[in-house]
Amino acid sequence: MNLILLFDDDFTHEPGTARLTGRRLRHVREVHRAEVGDTLTVGRLNGSLGAGTVLSLTKDAMELAVALDAPPPPPLPLTLILALPRPKVLNRVIIAATSMGVKRLVLLNAVRVEKSFWQSPRLAEENLLAQRVLGLEQAKDTRLPEILLKKRFKPFVEDELPAMARGTEQLAAHPYDAVPCPVRAKGPVTLAVGPEGGFIPYEMEKLKEAGFQAVSMGERILRVESAIPALLSRLYPL
Amino acid sequence: MNLILLFDDDFTHEPGTARLTGRRLRHVREVHRAEVGDTLTVGRLNGSLGAGTVLSLTKDAMELAVALDAPPPPPLPLTLILALPRPKVLNRVIIAATSMGVKRLVLLNAVRVEKSFWQSPRLAEENLLAQRVLGLEQAKDTRLPEILLKKRFKPFVEDELPAMARGTEQLAAHPYDAVPCPVRAKGPVTLAVGPEGGFIPYEMEKLKEAGFQAVSMGERILRVESAIPALLSRLYPL
Repeated sequence: MNLILLFDDDFTHEPGTARLTGRRLRHVREVHRAEVGDTLTVGRLNGSLGAGTVLSLTKDAMELAVALDAPPPPPLPLTLILALPRPKVLNRVIIAATSMGVKRLVLLNAVRVEKSFWQSPRLAEENLLAQRVLGLEQAKDTRLPEILLKKRFKPFVEDELPAMARGTEQLAAHPYDAVPCPVRAKGPVTLAVGPEGGFIPYEMEKLKEAGFQAVSMGERILRVESAIPALLSRLYPL
Repeated sequence: MNLILLFDDDFTHEPGTARLTGRRLRHVREVHRAEVGDTLTVGRLNGSLGAGTVLSLTKDAMELAVALDAPPPPPLPLTLILALPRPKVLNRVIIAATSMGVKRLVLLNAVRVEKSFWQSPRLAEENLLAQRVLGLEQAKDTRLPEILLKKRFKPFVEDELPAMARGTEQLAAHPYDAVPCPVRAKGPVTLAVGPEGGFIPYEMEKLKEAGFQAVSMGERILRVESAIPALLSRLYPL
């Protein structure tokens, strides 16, 4: 937690004062080991970054005097279209993409996505929010990414994706019939990443019809949680 | 498992024949769902890649006719000096680094490495080997990376690191007083990555005395399991 993310509900009637309990309180007490008078890095959800000075701190609650004055880091101009990963990996992938600045993540069905993955409790709105918050706190960001769940591949790729990807470079990470993945994207990108085992030929055909180019990162096949940071870092070396 | 890694002990007295049991057998039966006559991608530890044709397959063992004829992918010319991560993350980081082609990984102590991490059973030789094998199988590689455990920061950095890093570009991922991390390394690199919370100033001083330059990936702070693929992909975009 490199930043404490504050929600509207955290602010009290006292102007510029926030009151925290629960997970963030425990973290400040046990990891930061903060005391009254200490200053912590804070940010307001979808707002600015700044400093929170500890006004009071007990095991039940903490009050902060909050001054917000700096913009969050710029977002990555990239939409990530990701075949739904297995539940064990999902949280980590959401944190990784969020921490790198992705602001729109589409979790898409594909033939090699096991049907059971869509039943995972990790897809509950509450968990999807919690993981994005962890990613924002990690990267000292405040802007919550959007997550869209698309359980039907064909209608999404045919009917929604072309408008969503309009004006962007459209790349599908797929090592066959591919060109090398660009180093430094020229502008906004829509990046599609397949499931373990990859998109099937029909799915690649549909993506190509929608304007995607297959791109490769080399002969090594990476796990999705490594492939995503590797791809984003290559497209947008800051 | 994009490749089945074969060890010397797997080969039978029959030339070109290997016999597998255990984890690899289960994977071939349950995930690949292979049958007699099918061909699987195989590689010999520290040797060549090739094909294994299933000669027999029962629930107890599988025999393969093995033909090895292709070199493994080129290694990444990078030594990774990594502050020992928390046990929960260690396996994933070893798999990530191995799958990206790192051939020497030094796990180093630092002030912000909790002492208990060094007691983790995950540091047992058996587990370190198992994770590297998973990384090689993931990336279709055969060359086992070396892992060195260095529990004393100062003697390692003062006495061993200069010789180890000689002739390489020496970079420490550290966002303060840093230059931007190069995009495309000019040649071999020795890359130091600190613990959660970073190297302390004394440690950075020691690394600088040993020839390291602090480099930054931008204002976002990434978890180590994302930072490593992001750094490697930026230094060596294939």
